[in-house]
Amino acid sequence: MRYKKYNRRKQEIPVDDLVSRLQGGERVALAQAITLVESNSEYHFEKAQDILQSITNPANPSVRIGITGVPGVGKSTFIDTFGMYLCEKGLKVAVLAVDPSSQVSKGSILGDKTRMERLARHKQAFIRPSPSSGTLGGVNRKTRETILLCEAAGFDVILIETVGVGQGEFVVRSMVDFFLLLVLTGAGDELQTMKKGIMELPDLIVVNKADGDNLNKAIKAEHEYNTILHFLKPYTEGWTTKAMRASALKEIGIEEIWKTVERFFSTTKENGVFSNRRMQQKKDWLYDMIKEQLAYQFFHHPLIKEKIPFIEKGVLDGEKTVANSVEQLIAAFMNAKGLG
Amino acid sequence: MRYKKYNRRKQEIPVDDLVSRLQGGERVALAQAITLVESNSEYHFEKAQDILQSITNPANPSVRIGITGVPGVGKSTFIDTFGMYLCEKGLKVAVLAVDPSSQVSKGSILGDKTRMERLARHKQAFIRPSPSSGTLGGVNRKTRETILLCEAAGFDVILIETVGVGQGEFVVRSMVDFFLLLVLTGAGDELQTMKKGIMELPDLIVVNKADGDNLNKAIKAEHEYNTILHFLKPYTEGWTTKAMRASALKEIGIEEIWKTVERFFSTTKENGVFSNRRMQQKKDWLYDMIKEQLAYQFFHHPLIKEKIPFIEKGVLDGEKTVANSVEQLIAAFMNAKGLG
Repeated sequence: MRYKKYNRRKQEIPVDDLVSRLQGGERVALAQAITLVESNSEYHFEKAQDILQSITNPANPSVRIGITGVPGVGKSTFIDTFGMYLCEKGLKVAVLAVDPSSQVSKGSILGDKTRMERLARHKQAFIRPSPSSGTLGGVNRKTRETILLCEAAGFDVILIETVGVGQGEFVVRSMVDFFLLLVLTGAGDELQTMKKGIMELPDLIVVNKADGDNLNKAIKAEHEYNTILHFLKPYTEGWTTKAMRASALKEIGIEEIWKTVERFFSTTKENGVFSNRRMQQKKDWLYDMIKEQLAYQFFHHPLIKEKIPFIEKGVLDGEKTVANSVEQLIAAFMNAKGLG
Repeated sequence: MRYKKYNRRKQEIPVDDLVSRLQGGERVALAQAITLVESNSEYHFEKAQDILQSITNPANPSVRIGITGVPGVGKSTFIDTFGMYLCEKGLKVAVLAVDPSSQVSKGSILGDKTRMERLARHKQAFIRPSPSSGTLGGVNRKTRETILLCEAAGFDVILIETVGVGQGEFVVRSMVDFFLLLVLTGAGDELQTMKKGIMELPDLIVVNKADGDNLNKAIKAEHEYNTILHFLKPYTEGWTTKAMRASALKEIGIEEIWKTVERFFSTTKENGVFSNRRMQQKKDWLYDMIKEQLAYQFFHHPLIKEKIPFIEKGVLDGEKTVANSVEQLIAAFMNAKGLG
């Protein structure tokens, strides 16, 4: 395991060397840098931050695409087919996963590279399973930083897959330029099982498995989704979210999807939405992470950990008011901070 | 102004006395207690909390209804007509407003009681304009506490109005049992101007102004909204959100609305959703207020206020990493003991 090497500090690679190899497109260097980013150790954290501070922005910004859909919709097959199409166009493709529910890296989503058999073997592709969460910002930070590393290593397209668990879709939406929702036929049934607000996130809906006996149902679903989209406000200013159909398995409709993505990027780069969004995402990331870390420090403070169960019980039983309880807790924390 | 009285501490009314008068249904006592709740002074805050801690829960829990809709939809007329209908049924009705955008109480929403002319004069009704925000929890806390005071004073129905500004609808949704969205005819156009996610909040959609020449358009809109609702997940478990039409001006359809509200309460009280929701709302309120106050302490800390503009610039310019900046800021805050 490469990871072990980093536990023995003597053998470690200097940051400068790692950065130049990474920027030269060396996959081993990229994998090592990501391992540092994903580590939960304070020491690796510092080193990873040094690397991130040293890398320069790529000349051409990459294309960051989020992909989601319920289990069984065919996400792996779609990414395999779509990724292969992009590789064959000469593009370098990185596939990352976000799984906010994973406490330990079980490789549950993408660890099994056989899920994307062809893409996993392609020399222009790089597949990385979902990181585990940790104390220094969790899955969210690690994925964002991994995107930056992949871009520095020259990857043109970053595909970020998420399962429909917890806040996965919203987290991924906040780190990509373009968001694609994969769906199946039977819009009504499927929409009932989707989480609230999901329908308002995508820049494109793709009805997958539009082949063979399923084709007519897919055409109907495409129409239904377009009807609903007509009533919803598109996520991206100046862009109309549409539904289209495809078959990842039969490789039908893949080129049309890519053309839509290209049209999206030319539109949003021209009207300024692309760069505004990237800037805003960076700012949101800063403030979100501050609040996340602040809450972490608070709720993990020994004093608060001791008090909170009594406070919660008192409030729910109606013995204490919410505002008073909050005031007391915050005051106790502000006086005892240094202890944490 | 009654408010001034409280600034002269000598003349103040003891908590016990105020509480017993308030629970006896005395309107003056209720108004005084709300003024304390709304005050931004630390001293009044303590006193308000004493009152809140002293009041006992009403024997029959009240009905908390949130009402929203775009400007021009006829919210005032609707509340006037709906409120009068309820008063005539023998119920006591309180009308509150939430306007998260109001920094100072301009009485912008409900201050002008002529907006609800008939209801404002009715002895069973109580109308209170939107409070201003402040440092001890803001509009959100003040409205929640005012609800509790109104309930202790024996009001049966609490109507909470919000304008479609900022997070108003989401804030109100988090403090009510039932949420009503007022709309106009022309679903497609209107939906395009609504904020993302609004359509997934209500327990009932009412197409207002369904009278005269507008009736046919209202019937069409009712149908369109029901089509969209069919594809969305209802907000309340075990309840199907439907659209219906009404005319607040002509007093048509008001009884049907109240029957729907009654059916909602009997359903959700039977399946446990009502009490679970109230419990969860209280818990969410506690944790939301903790995070809000924590962020307030942080961003108002002199050390952070000084550092944050440089940090933000460094991050946006790409000179510093997000994670590193956050770590430094949090460490500085945690070490800056007692300064806050």
